[in-house]
Amino acid sequence: MKATARANVNIALVKYWGKRNKKLILPYNSSISMTCDGLFTITTVEFSDKYNRDIIVINDEELKVEEDKSPSPPFAAARVKDEKDVLGHLERIRQTAGIKEKVKVVSQSNFPVAAGLASSASGLAAITVAAAKAAGSNLDQKELSILARQGSGSACRSIFGGFVEWLRGEKEDGSDSYAVQIAPPEHWLEFRLIVTILSEEKKKVGSRAGMAQTVETCPYYENWLKTVNQDLEIIRKGILNKDFTSVGSRAEHNCLKMHALMITTSPAIIYWRPETLKIVQNILGWREGGLECYFTIDAGPQIKIICLEKDVPELKKRLQALKDVKKIIVCRPGEGTKLIDEHLF
Amino acid sequence: MKATARANVNIALVKYWGKRNKKLILPYNSSISMTCDGLFTITTVEFSDKYNRDIIVINDEELKVEEDKSPSPPFAAARVKDEKDVLGHLERIRQTAGIKEKVKVVSQSNFPVAAGLASSASGLAAITVAAAKAAGSNLDQKELSILARQGSGSACRSIFGGFVEWLRGEKEDGSDSYAVQIAPPEHWLEFRLIVTILSEEKKKVGSRAGMAQTVETCPYYENWLKTVNQDLEIIRKGILNKDFTSVGSRAEHNCLKMHALMITTSPAIIYWRPETLKIVQNILGWREGGLECYFTIDAGPQIKIICLEKDVPELKKRLQALKDVKKIIVCRPGEGTKLIDEHLF
Repeated sequence: MKATARANVNIALVKYWGKRNKKLILPYNSSISMTCDGLFTITTVEFSDKYNRDIIVINDEELKVEEDKSPSPPFAAARVKDEKDVLGHLERIRQTAGIKEKVKVVSQSNFPVAAGLASSASGLAAITVAAAKAAGSNLDQKELSILARQGSGSACRSIFGGFVEWLRGEKEDGSDSYAVQIAPPEHWLEFRLIVTILSEEKKKVGSRAGMAQTVETCPYYENWLKTVNQDLEIIRKGILNKDFTSVGSRAEHNCLKMHALMITTSPAIIYWRPETLKIVQNILGWREGGLECYFTIDAGPQIKIICLEKDVPELKKRLQALKDVKKIIVCRPGEGTKLIDEHLF
Repeated sequence: MKATARANVNIALVKYWGKRNKKLILPYNSSISMTCDGLFTITTVEFSDKYNRDIIVINDEELKVEEDKSPSPPFAAARVKDEKDVLGHLERIRQTAGIKEKVKVVSQSNFPVAAGLASSASGLAAITVAAAKAAGSNLDQKELSILARQGSGSACRSIFGGFVEWLRGEKEDGSDSYAVQIAPPEHWLEFRLIVTILSEEKKKVGSRAGMAQTVETCPYYENWLKTVNQDLEIIRKGILNKDFTSVGSRAEHNCLKMHALMITTSPAIIYWRPETLKIVQNILGWREGGLECYFTIDAGPQIKIICLEKDVPELKKRLQALKDVKKIIVCRPGEGTKLIDEHLF
């Protein structure tokens, strides 16, 4: 009744932005990501009679939902929401398995949380795989992906390694909305994402709130939905053909399309910081100068550079020369969520 | 046969972005602007037999189209285009008046040219009014507005003072695409635009090229056109009712909508600089703190702050404390293009 899983984060090349069903977390559009080697969450889950209450420890901090009655917004509010999400997700897994024992969860990520680095994706993927195993459920990857999706949308992609597509699905019950692998990590070993950490502050508007606001108020959302399938097709084909220019340029365009949605939402959500734009302008200049690289940015200030292995040394050198870059992490395509033997408690 | 006109620049609150007819300069959407007191171009035009060639001097520099045969892009190319525009416009005015004399033009602006400060608007409005007078044409403001529009789209708005709407029009020949005054300057004397100059560099992509690229490649342009009429209606009503919150917030939203078009165009056009975003983030913070002000940004890095007279001293103080701001110009609603007695030669 105790299991541990390690899940890598994933970074989207075609973004997930907007839910058609908030409860089941069903997206308006399919999305494509790379699962990143080296940025992960390890989670141990145990269901047992020896616990008289659910105990959840995330990055050395215990979640206490009931006690935190007057959170000071916006961060405390986001915290309470996260805790309810995690508890709700564990309850879902208990129901799936038909068990009633209380649970102890200890989860540890090796990167800053809530700074646009998909912490909820790796966190919820790890908890899903470990908890399903600990609960005695025997689920395949598709079932795990559907389950993880209900905890945090993009978590469904982290179940798989390499290059992954989360299929939007059509059904109301969400049974056809899950991730599939486009290509395993070894298909494109030269592909790299360089995560540049510019700020470790928690973001002001979480992606969940940002998405909801976009769907409700953004005048361009209709055109986003009309054109995203073209982005998906180009990037899917580009991955299969290892066509770097095609994947990089379209991923950058898709990222700008998502940020264009955010800035035209009411009120505007501007995740970019001056440093973000400085790196963006640098990347555009480097590319003009012949160093082929592209950027993608999620719901936070960090920039992820899309490049090939051969250009990593030069890019690292140039990034280190920019004083705004606090940390650089180079990710190759990584494996999906796996059960491991070592436990956190 | 000699006349001089002074034209103020105008700053759009609902942006003009995209031409449905490039030759006649007919826009896809109507736009609204404020004509700005204090930022102007003075132009003297003389048609005379004593000149054996057209002489055009803009800001102390003579334009020489034929001699400049191998321009080094992108700026020289833009220069040649500008010169052809000005010459073509003078030819149009000669034809309208039925005269054949060569022309001498001397034009002087009191602000940096081509840095997102609508220099072509005041320049072409001044040249139109002075040249029409010098050519002996007796045109009313509507006719002058139609003529100025063919020189540079937004110039048609600078013919009028105060708050101005450029009506898109429906006809193919452009005869119903001209500006009208929504309200004169004295209607809203407390309204202010603070122009903050962050950079006096010439921009890389001119608005003309940027617009064409947007119309051809931007996936959101359809939604821009579908929703711009709502912006026009809210701002038109807001001006008439002197509803500052309504005008400011919608103008800011419309500006973000235009920049969202630019960044999603292929290739992306990112006019914002890190300093631009820094001021934007400051403005959002000041507003949250109770100082009501909004921003608008055109095809360049400068920021224009929309505010009321009472808040100008506090805003100036805060802007001066930001080291990126090189110059601050406070504009009240100004008058339209006028003939003046003093000549430049």
